[in-house]
Amino acid sequence: MRVTVLAGGFGGSKFISGVRSAIGPDDEISVIANTADDLWIFGVRVSPDLDTIMYTLGGGIDPERGWGRTDETWNAKDELAAYGEPQAWFGLGDRDLATHLVRTARLRDGRTLSEVTAELCERWQPGVRLLPMTDDEVETHIVTTVDGREEVIHFQEFWIKHRAAVPVLGVELHGIEAASPTPEVLAAIDEADVVLLAPSNPIVSIGPIVAVPGMRDALAAARAPIVGVSPIIGGAAVRGMADQLLDGLGIETSASAVARHLGARVDGGLLDGWLVDTQDAREVEPIESARIAARSVPLFMNDAATTQQLAVDAIAFATELRARR
Amino acid sequence: MRVTVLAGGFGGSKFISGVRSAIGPDDEISVIANTADDLWIFGVRVSPDLDTIMYTLGGGIDPERGWGRTDETWNAKDELAAYGEPQAWFGLGDRDLATHLVRTARLRDGRTLSEVTAELCERWQPGVRLLPMTDDEVETHIVTTVDGREEVIHFQEFWIKHRAAVPVLGVELHGIEAASPTPEVLAAIDEADVVLLAPSNPIVSIGPIVAVPGMRDALAAARAPIVGVSPIIGGAAVRGMADQLLDGLGIETSASAVARHLGARVDGGLLDGWLVDTQDAREVEPIESARIAARSVPLFMNDAATTQQLAVDAIAFATELRARR
Repeated sequence: MRVTVLAGGFGGSKFISGVRSAIGPDDEISVIANTADDLWIFGVRVSPDLDTIMYTLGGGIDPERGWGRTDETWNAKDELAAYGEPQAWFGLGDRDLATHLVRTARLRDGRTLSEVTAELCERWQPGVRLLPMTDDEVETHIVTTVDGREEVIHFQEFWIKHRAAVPVLGVELHGIEAASPTPEVLAAIDEADVVLLAPSNPIVSIGPIVAVPGMRDALAAARAPIVGVSPIIGGAAVRGMADQLLDGLGIETSASAVARHLGARVDGGLLDGWLVDTQDAREVEPIESARIAARSVPLFMNDAATTQQLAVDAIAFATELRARR
Repeated sequence: MRVTVLAGGFGGSKFISGVRSAIGPDDEISVIANTADDLWIFGVRVSPDLDTIMYTLGGGIDPERGWGRTDETWNAKDELAAYGEPQAWFGLGDRDLATHLVRTARLRDGRTLSEVTAELCERWQPGVRLLPMTDDEVETHIVTTVDGREEVIHFQEFWIKHRAAVPVLGVELHGIEAASPTPEVLAAIDEADVVLLAPSNPIVSIGPIVAVPGMRDALAAARAPIVGVSPIIGGAAVRGMADQLLDGLGIETSASAVARHLGARVDGGLLDGWLVDTQDAREVEPIESARIAARSVPLFMNDAATTQQLAVDAIAFATELRARR
């Protein structure tokens, strides 16, 4: 079986680890990762979601923080602050920096992000094919007001520096028009038996992936069923600040509203199926009336067992939908 | 009084600290620093000599090592090695990296090396005007044989990775033809009352500075006397591996041979005067017969007092030569 997962960073990487534990030895996982969180900072290229997935699956993640490296030190960052750098808010750990330096060196040498990601994964052995959604530079920017003035800031600045505590007036995907999916991404969609959307932020993780020109067409043409896992449980984001983003775009923070936002595949949207948490069982009916198959299962990924079970449920639901088609 | 010092890294920064302690409160020091040791590595720009001078004069240098930062950690470097990076031999300390990151960010923004150096010095307050010899990229490469094959390698690779233990067949200054001195450098030479050559490597520190097109003309036209301090004492380099470089270029490792290599200013060379160590007093006469004024004084910079005294001697000698002209 070939499973292809669309994913952002934190929730995505947990979910993927569940899928990895749920499949058999002959099965394959391809991950199409959001790269719109990426940024140039201090002249180096940082790919937060790729790294979170790579470190999580490769055993290098700091489990408390959920991003960056174990046994991290922050001397470079402290020194950037000592230089009075306004961008020293960014979490550049010393160990993590090595990953950014290798990536930057390769990109400066003319290699693609896909190539350098594959190279970095030779060390981490994540057990999945980790594919950037595109080799082109796409960056999510948030239209907001800072100190009363309208500003357009990089998503990382919104997320880390402002902790999502400034208003969201809009989301812009800079560079998206000129971007294209990589051949590996298109093949991973085309050849998949199952396509899963990880419980990642629908606006800034799944959103940019499916906004890459050509991606929606590829997903529409996929022979595999497409099943998403709701990142909203009980009317709140499981982690982080997805609700501010949803609010800002006029989308209700609920499992069913996010499903409708992504849309039914039969109506030109993305989803064949949508998994909601058991506490959101009453949302199954409104989702199904929007022509998206829905089921309620436990969505909290509290430990390895619940995470694996969620992956098993998602794959089983997709397999069932495939049989129905 | 305006003192302008041409300098490389380690010996240069010690000597400059001596000059700083030797001058009065109304005197000014400009340092024209070698930038041909600079390199791009892992996508960041490193300027070893500028940083050694800046850290030494600003109190941030590791005094044992003679380069890099105090309280340094090496986690990024260790991780680069874990990625199997062949360039992980380069001494990228975590704290030091912050300096390279700020520099790289500014250069990528289109700022000049002179501008970013001035900005970095706002933090370190070295007490001198620290001037890169040029804003253009010049890189010293060493022609050598590695495992029997002729190779041209960056000076840093020769110096750090091979510890100068490979043969020197030649020295190439890549980019030198297209380089020019900055306006600040030319003004520092033109306006100087005294020009001093620090006891830095004559081939790879002083050599590249005076090889920048226009630099020799500027020095020839300077109204200030030009006095150099021999980096060779008793037939050996005070520190480091200058002798291998001199050997490779067919220059005897002696105070007088280096003086002749730099040349008498009256004959189109660089030097009005040359200070040799007291143990090389017998070299004064051959140097003077090459039309370079010479004097023997203690050259070892063992502590703050001897370092200051050397600077006092150099300035006094230059002042005397100025009176003679």
